[in-house]
Amino acid sequence: MRIDIITVLPELLKSPFEASILKRAIEANLVEVHFHNLRDYTTDKYKSVDDYQFGGGAGMVMMVEPIDKCITKLQSQRNYDEIIYMTPDGETLNQGIANKLSLHENIIILCGHYKGVDQRVRDKFITKEISIGDYVLSGGELGAAVLCDAVIRLIPGVLGNETSALTDSFQDNLLAPPIYTRPREYKGMKVPEILFSGNFPKIEKWREEQAYKRTQERRPDLLKD
Amino acid sequence: MRIDIITVLPELLKSPFEASILKRAIEANLVEVHFHNLRDYTTDKYKSVDDYQFGGGAGMVMMVEPIDKCITKLQSQRNYDEIIYMTPDGETLNQGIANKLSLHENIIILCGHYKGVDQRVRDKFITKEISIGDYVLSGGELGAAVLCDAVIRLIPGVLGNETSALTDSFQDNLLAPPIYTRPREYKGMKVPEILFSGNFPKIEKWREEQAYKRTQERRPDLLKD
Repeated sequence: MRIDIITVLPELLKSPFEASILKRAIEANLVEVHFHNLRDYTTDKYKSVDDYQFGGGAGMVMMVEPIDKCITKLQSQRNYDEIIYMTPDGETLNQGIANKLSLHENIIILCGHYKGVDQRVRDKFITKEISIGDYVLSGGELGAAVLCDAVIRLIPGVLGNETSALTDSFQDNLLAPPIYTRPREYKGMKVPEILFSGNFPKIEKWREEQAYKRTQERRPDLLKD
Repeated sequence: MRIDIITVLPELLKSPFEASILKRAIEANLVEVHFHNLRDYTTDKYKSVDDYQFGGGAGMVMMVEPIDKCITKLQSQRNYDEIIYMTPDGETLNQGIANKLSLHENIIILCGHYKGVDQRVRDKFITKEISIGDYVLSGGELGAAVLCDAVIRLIPGVLGNETSALTDSFQDNLLAPPIYTRPREYKGMKVPEILFSGNFPKIEKWREEQAYKRTQERRPDLLKD
């Protein structure tokens, strides 16, 4: 899989891709991630990527031309399955969308910044608009990092233990059950006895019950689907 | 406002805090962000922060003791309004939660990693569990960065133009209307004429209609609240 990220702040995105699972996935050639600085596609000497809103109002707007140039160049080099724009009014990311995206060959992620991009970019180039949640961030960069993390960890071979991703929250519409590790007792707080029983079918059953109970208490909406 | 972030991967979190709005807010002393490496609170020579799950199963679990030590030390230095754990089964972050958190003096954010933390940490120390969305990430670090960004930009003085945050999506349960900037025409794509009318009440009305229309098309659920 290849991911091209278009941004005005490539430096903001650096560290999440240089640590932990994303770093290992890139080093193992399971995914390629390329950053494109929009300022490299500007035409004026100030390297402007944004300008005032037509009609007045607070906040700058990202211009069409540099984005057009960058996307057009990338599209001349290969076919893209999706050109994604990170925006709070996009489709809300969930595990199902992450699963689907993880099957693609090539995707572009455009990070909005300032007040967002000129609407004509969305009308002409974008094939999918994604929001990571109902809150506003300073830019699309963190959203892009979140999307990449959610997607890349699903690529076969990225996680050490293949079963690990499958037992995460949401993969079966249930939240994960409580988990415990050593010590057995810590300042009077004990681990549930069942986990020491050695009776694995019974432990599995307990975990399922706990997962169901937690989902019912915290996220009954997940059980309705 | 002071934010203490407890993590096993402080290096993953670096760049988002060293660029753009977060960097400027920190430099202007509007917020202090401190990173605490959990490995500095370990007691064995391997600096272990995690161990196998009791009862078997894939994925490592973060141990109670280093987290206890770190939180206890911080609490001995000041009072905290909330001790937040980033987890996919927490309360889903939204703009209302971000607004409330932005009024606090001191918060701790604990980033889960691996399979998550020992349940006893959640039972004993955590006052609020937050998820940034219904998807699974490699760890809580990106979630913590997202939470910090959503909260810090709401602190008065952080955004250059005070009205900018108020006209964002979600602040009034409406998505933002389309925005445009120069040029007026780009490869045949034109900016709506109304935006050049100079009639600001009319432009405001058009924007409200567009915001309402977009919300109705994309997120009718927001209009029900």
